[in-house]
Amino acid sequence: MKRQIFFTIFGKILLGDIMGHEIDLKNTNVYTDLLVEQIESDLYNTNMVGNCKITTINVDSNLSMELNKQEGTYITIEFNDITDIDNREELGKILVDNIKLLLDNEGITEDKSCLLVGLGNANSTPDSLGPRTLDNILITRHLFILDKLKKGVRSISGFTPNVMANTGIETYDIIKGIISTTNPDFIIVIDSLKASSIDRVNRTIQLTNTGIKPGSGIGNYRLEISKNTLNIPVIAIGVPTVLDATTIASNTITYLFKHISYIKDNSSINKLIVGRSNYLNKIKDRDLSKEEKEDFFGIVGTLTENDKYNLIKEVLNGIDYDLIVTPKDIDFVIDKLGEVIGFAINNALSEEINNY
Amino acid sequence: MKRQIFFTIFGKILLGDIMGHEIDLKNTNVYTDLLVEQIESDLYNTNMVGNCKITTINVDSNLSMELNKQEGTYITIEFNDITDIDNREELGKILVDNIKLLLDNEGITEDKSCLLVGLGNANSTPDSLGPRTLDNILITRHLFILDKLKKGVRSISGFTPNVMANTGIETYDIIKGIISTTNPDFIIVIDSLKASSIDRVNRTIQLTNTGIKPGSGIGNYRLEISKNTLNIPVIAIGVPTVLDATTIASNTITYLFKHISYIKDNSSINKLIVGRSNYLNKIKDRDLSKEEKEDFFGIVGTLTENDKYNLIKEVLNGIDYDLIVTPKDIDFVIDKLGEVIGFAINNALSEEINNY
Amino acid sequence: MKRQIFFTIFGKILLGDIMGHEIDLKNTNVYTDLLVEQIESDLYNTNMVGNCKITTINVDSNLSMELNKQEGTYITIEFNDITDIDNREELGKILVDNIKLLLDNEGITEDKSCLLVGLGNANSTPDSLGPRTLDNILITRHLFILDKLKKGVRSISGFTPNVMANTGIETYDIIKGIISTTNPDFIIVIDSLKASSIDRVNRTIQLTNTGIKPGSGIGNYRLEISKNTLNIPVIAIGVPTVLDATTIASNTITYLFKHISYIKDNSSINKLIVGRSNYLNKIKDRDLSKEEKEDFFGIVGTLTENDKYNLIKEVLNGIDYDLIVTPKDIDFVIDKLGEVIGFAINNALSEEINNY
Amino acid sequence: MKRQIFFTIFGKILLGDIMGHEIDLKNTNVYTDLLVEQIESDLYNTNMVGNCKITTINVDSNLSMELNKQEGTYITIEFNDITDIDNREELGKILVDNIKLLLDNEGITEDKSCLLVGLGNANSTPDSLGPRTLDNILITRHLFILDKLKKGVRSISGFTPNVMANTGIETYDIIKGIISTTNPDFIIVIDSLKASSIDRVNRTIQLTNTGIKPGSGIGNYRLEISKNTLNIPVIAIGVPTVLDATTIASNTITYLFKHISYIKDNSSINKLIVGRSNYLNKIKDRDLSKEEKEDFFGIVGTLTENDKYNLIKEVLNGIDYDLIVTPKDIDFVIDKLGEVIGFAINNALSEEINNY
Repeated sequence: MKRQIFFTIFGKILLGDIMGHEIDLKNTNVYTDLLVEQIESDLYNTNMVGNCKITTINVDSNLSMELNKQEGTYITIEFNDITDIDNREELGKILVDNIKLLLDNEGITEDKSCLLVGLGNANSTPDSLGPRTLDNILITRHLFILDKLKKGVRSISGFTPNVMANTGIETYDIIKGIISTTNPDFIIVIDSLKASSIDRVNRTIQLTNTGIKPGSGIGNYRLEISKNTLNIPVIAIGVPTVLDATTIASNTITYLFKHISYIKDNSSINKLIVGRSNYLNKIKDRDLSKEEKEDFFGIVGTLTENDKYNLIKEVLNGIDYDLIVTPKDIDFVIDKLGEVIGFAINNALSEEINNY
Repeated sequence: MKRQIFFTIFGKILLGDIMGHEIDLKNTNVYTDLLVEQIESDLYNTNMVGNCKITTINVDSNLSMELNKQEGTYITIEFNDITDIDNREELGKILVDNIKLLLDNEGITEDKSCLLVGLGNANSTPDSLGPRTLDNILITRHLFILDKLKKGVRSISGFTPNVMANTGIETYDIIKGIISTTNPDFIIVIDSLKASSIDRVNRTIQLTNTGIKPGSGIGNYRLEISKNTLNIPVIAIGVPTVLDATTIASNTITYLFKHISYIKDNSSINKLIVGRSNYLNKIKDRDLSKEEKEDFFGIVGTLTENDKYNLIKEVLNGIDYDLIVTPKDIDFVIDKLGEVIGFAINNALSEEINNY
Repeated sequence: MKRQIFFTIFGKILLGDIMGHEIDLKNTNVYTDLLVEQIESDLYNTNMVGNCKITTINVDSNLSMELNKQEGTYITIEFNDITDIDNREELGKILVDNIKLLLDNEGITEDKSCLLVGLGNANSTPDSLGPRTLDNILITRHLFILDKLKKGVRSISGFTPNVMANTGIETYDIIKGIISTTNPDFIIVIDSLKASSIDRVNRTIQLTNTGIKPGSGIGNYRLEISKNTLNIPVIAIGVPTVLDATTIASNTITYLFKHISYIKDNSSINKLIVGRSNYLNKIKDRDLSKEEKEDFFGIVGTLTENDKYNLIKEVLNGIDYDLIVTPKDIDFVIDKLGEVIGFAINNALSEEINNY
Repeated sequence: MKRQIFFTIFGKILLGDIMGHEIDLKNTNVYTDLLVEQIESDLYNTNMVGNCKITTINVDSNLSMELNKQEGTYITIEFNDITDIDNREELGKILVDNIKLLLDNEGITEDKSCLLVGLGNANSTPDSLGPRTLDNILITRHLFILDKLKKGVRSISGFTPNVMANTGIETYDIIKGIISTTNPDFIIVIDSLKASSIDRVNRTIQLTNTGIKPGSGIGNYRLEISKNTLNIPVIAIGVPTVLDATTIASNTITYLFKHISYIKDNSSINKLIVGRSNYLNKIKDRDLSKEEKEDFFGIVGTLTENDKYNLIKEVLNGIDYDLIVTPKDIDFVIDKLGEVIGFAINNALSEEINNY
C-alpha cells in the first residue's frame, strides 16, 4: 500500500513521466564542478605524490557527451589540511608541476602573455578564493609597457571581475571586453567551486584546460569562460569551498547509513576517542542492506542518490532557501589557499621566480 | 524485528543509558540562541508593528530553570527582507524603541557611559555582524577625555575583540580587562547568532538584558558576557546569520514531511507557479501522520525533533565536519544589518543624534 | 652679484633656455585637477547654497586652449567638514541637483543606461574614493537582464578597474573593453584628485562633462576617459584627497609669508587661542612686500608661484620621492565621501530612489 | 634693519623668551621616533650585513636625559627597497637574529608567554603596519588552553587595539586591561613610526626594549607602552611609514641647498640621466655656505634645522593642517613589511617554526 502512495507522490516528484510532471533532465544529476565526483573510479588512474592524490582524466568526445563535460584534461589534486605549512609546501610544488604540464599541453611557450582572472566576490569569504589568489600574483604587463622587462619573466596581467550581483555585468562580458583591448595569449581563471560531497570541501584542487562556468560554485549558471567562447587557451583552477544545502542534507542521510551500519557491528565503540579521518575511514566503505535502509529510512531509504538529491532539492527550492555551506575556519583556509595557488602560478609562469 | 535492531542501535546513540554510552544532556536539545525557538507560542504574546512581529518574553526563575536560559527580558523582532530600504527603516525605528525600553528597564539614564562590543570575526562574512555594526557606531568617549562634550551625547566607547582563533584570548578576558581600565556603566554586545530553523536566518533580531555567550553563533562555547560575570548591565543584540549543518539536514527532513503531505493532496499542483513565502506558507502547517512518516522515513521518521537532531549531529560530529550554513548574499545582508543596528544604537543612546 | 649666481643657477633650472636645459612647458604650471585653481576668480560667478560655494565654469574653445583643459562644463562645490552629518546632507542634495544638471546638459534621458566606474586603489585609503563610492551604488543592470525591471529605475552597471600597478592594464583599456561588450549609453567616473592647495583637500567636489585622466590624482598620466576617446558622454566626479609633496612645501612657503605678515602687525597675539578656520581666515589675504619676501626668503622669496613650485619639484623629483600628502583621518573622510557621492548618484539616476 | 624685524618677529616665534611668547621646549626638537636621527653618528658603531646597515645604540642614564629617550637598547636596521624579494629575505633573517638578541638581553626564555600588539588603524593604509603584521603571526595561546601544545612552540596571543578615534579608549588602557586578565610574560608591539627625514620612510626598522608611545607615528601623544608602565618587558618594533607636512617642507629646503650647491658646480649636468639613489648620493654631502644660504633663502636660510622646523610647524599648526606624507605605493609596501616582520617574529619566538 505504501508503494502505491509512493508512486502517486514520488512518481510525480522524481519520476515525473507518470503524471506529466516535467523535470529538466540536466538538473537530475547531483550537481558538482568536480569531474572526479561524476565518474567511476575504475575509469582513471590515480597516483600519490607525498600525501597528495593526483588524478588525471582525459575526457574524449564520447566521455564528453556521456558526462556533459567539456573535452579536455582534468587534473585533480586531493590534499590534506591546508592550514599546515608542510602540506602547503608539498601542494605548492605539485601545483607548479601540473600547471606547467597544462601549459605544455596547450603549447604555451614562456614568451606568451597571460591574463589572470580571479572570479568570485572578495567581500564574501567563501567565494573570495579568486580575488585572494590575485593578491599573490606578480603582475608584470605594465613593466613591459614601460619597457622594464626582466629576462625569464613573461607579460602577466590580472583582474577580478567581481560578481554580477555587484557589477550588473556578466563575468563573460567583462573578460571578453578586456581580452579585446589587451590581447593576452592565454588565460588562467581561479574560482571557488561547489562540491557534491562534504569530504571535498577545501581538500581538492581541479586544474583543467577546458575553462569554467563562473559562479557555478555558488549556483549561478553563467556563460562559460573557455577556448570555445574566447578563442584562446583557458586554464581553470578551482577549489570546492562550498556545498549547497541540498548536498549537505543528502550527504547526511548517506553517512547515516554508513554510521548505523558501523555502530551496529561495533556496539562497544567508545565514541569519545573517535578521531576525524579516523572515523571517516572506518565508515566510508560501510553501507546498509536495501532492507535495512528501508527499515530505517522507509521509502526515502530506497531512493537512488540522484532521486534523493532531487527530492531534497525540490523541497528546499520550493521554499526557496538559497544557502551555502562552508567550514567555520573558511577565512583562514581561503587565505592560505590563495597564497599556495598564487605562489604556484607565479613559479609556473616565470622560471626566474621562486616564492618558496 | 526492526524495532529490536532500532533499540539496539538507536538506544545506544540517542538514549545512551542502555549500553552505558554517555551523552551530555545539555546538548540533547536542538541548539538555538533564540528563546522563541525554545518556547511554546502559547506562553507569550506577540504584536505586529507594521510588517514586523515583536515578541517580548520575561523569563522568571521557573522558566529559567526549565529552559536553561538566563532570567530576564527577551525581545524578538521578526522582519522581512532587510535588503529592502523600507523594511530597513521600519526595523530601525522599532529597534530604537526596544533598545530604549531595555535601557529603561535596567535603569540606565542618559548620563551613563556605554561600552559597545562587536563580537565575531571581521574576516569571515557570516560572522562579521558585530564588527560591521561597530563601523556604524558614533564613538564619543575620547571627546569627553578631550573635554569636547556635546549636550545630549553620552560617553560611548567601542571595540571588536575578534575571535579566539585569531587572538588566542577568551573574548570574556578581553572584555573583562577593558572594563577594568575604562569602567563603563553598561555594555551593549552585538553578535551573530545560530538559529535552529532555516526561516530565522537574517530575519530575526533578539534583544535581551541577559547577556550572551560569545561565539555560540558558530558553535564555540565560551564564558558568558553578562551582568552575572561582569557586574554591570549587559544588553545583547543578536541576529541569527548561520545554521549548523545538523540543523539544515534536520530541517530538511521536517520540510519533506510537510512537502509530501501537501503534494499528496494537491497532485495537480504546477510547481512552476510556486512562489517563495507563498509555498512556505502553504506547507508550514502541514504534516504527515505518524504512520505515513514511518512509511516514507522508516524509523527515522518516528524520531522526535531532538532525537533526529542528535542522531544527525552525532553522524556529522563523528566525521568532524565543522560547517556553517549561510545565505548566498550574506555579504550584502550583513552590511545592511550592520547599518540598521548601528544607526539604531546611535539614536537610542543619544537623544541628539538622528541618523535617519 | 647674487643675482648673477641666481641666473646662472636658476636660469638653468627654471628658465632653462639659457643653458639649453629642457623643461616640458606643460609641466611648468603648478599641477592641479581642479579648474578653479587654474583660473582667475573674476572670470566666473559663484553662488552660495547653504554653506556650500558653487562655481560653474563653461570652458569654450579659447579658454580651452589657454588652460589646456577640455571644453565643457565644470561645476565646483566647496563644502565644510564632511564628517558632520548636517554638512553631508546639505552636500548630498546639492550633488543630486548638479549631477542631474549635467545629465540634462548632455541630453541624457532617464531611459539611458549608465556604467559607473570607480577609479583608484581600494587598498590605498587616500586613493580609494572611487571603489568606496561604488560600494554605495544601486546596481540594476542584471535585474533588467533577468527582466525584473522596476519603473523609474534605469539600467545601472558598475565596476572598479583597480590601478595599473595591480592589474598591469591601462584603466582606459579596461573601460573601453567593457563598453564594447555592455554598450552603456553614458559613463560616470569617480576618482580621487590632486589639489594644488592644502585648503582644497577633502573640501571640494568637481563635476564635469569633460571626463578625466585616471590616476592623475596620484600623478600617473594615463589616456583620458572622455567622450572624445569613448564616443559616449562621460560625467566625471572628483574630490581632491591628496597633494604632492611639492605642493605642500610650496604652499608652506606661501603661508609663511602670510603668517609673518600677520604676526608682524599683531605682536601681542596669543597663539593659544588661535582657532582653525579662524586663523586661516585672518591670514589668508595677508602677504609680505616684495622687499620683505626677499629679506626673509632671499631669492626664493622673489620667485613666482610656478617657478617656486618647479624648483621644489625638480629637487624632489631629482631625489625621486614619490610621496602623497593626505589628512590623518582620511579613512573616515573617504568613507563618508563615498556615502554622500554614492547616495547622490543613486538619487540623481533614479527618480524612484531616495536614500535620504 | 631686517635683523631688527627678524628678531621682532622670529624672536617671538622661535626664541620666544624676548616677548614672553611661550613655546613648549619639548617640542622644539625636530620630532622623530628614530633614535639614529637624534644622535651624532660618531657616538655609535654601525656594521653592514649584506645590504643592510645595522646600528646598535645603548642609551645609558646620561644619554637618556640628554636625548629625552628611555634608557635601553636601540637596534636600527636600514634596508633597501622592500618590494624586492631578495631584500625581504635578507632583512627577514637579520630581523630574526636581532629580535632574539633583544629577547636574550631581557632574559626571556623560550617558555615565556608573549602578547603581540599590532598598533595603528587597519583602515588607514599608512598606519596599518601593526594590524597587517598581526595577520601573519602564528597565534598559539588558545591551543595551550585546549592543551594542544606542540614542543618548541611558546604561548603567543595577539590583538589589535585599533586607534582612539575609533574606540574612544586609550591604547594603553586596552593593553593594560588585557594584560591584567591574560598575564603574558612579555609584550611585543609593532607600530608605524614617524621619521624626521624623507630618506627613512619604509627603509628603516627600529627594534628596542624601551617600549613605544602608540600613535606617535601619526602625531598623537599617548601614554607609553613600556616596562615602566606595565611591569613586564616590552619589545617595540617600528617602521617609519609617514612624515608630517612640517618635515617634508623643512626637508625640502634642506635639499634645495644641496641641490643648488651641486648644480652650481655642475652646470653641464644632464638631469635626464639622473637616477634615484644616484643623484641623492651625489648631493647628500653638499651644502651651501652660510652667505649663499642667506642669498637664496634670506633669513630663513640662516635658521638652524630646529628653528626652521618650528617656524614651519607653527605656520601649519596655526592653520591646523593635520597631514601625513606617505609613499604612493604604500599599500604594497605595508603588505610586504607586515609579512617580513610577522614571519621574523614567528621564527624568533618559536625554534620549531620556519616560514622561509
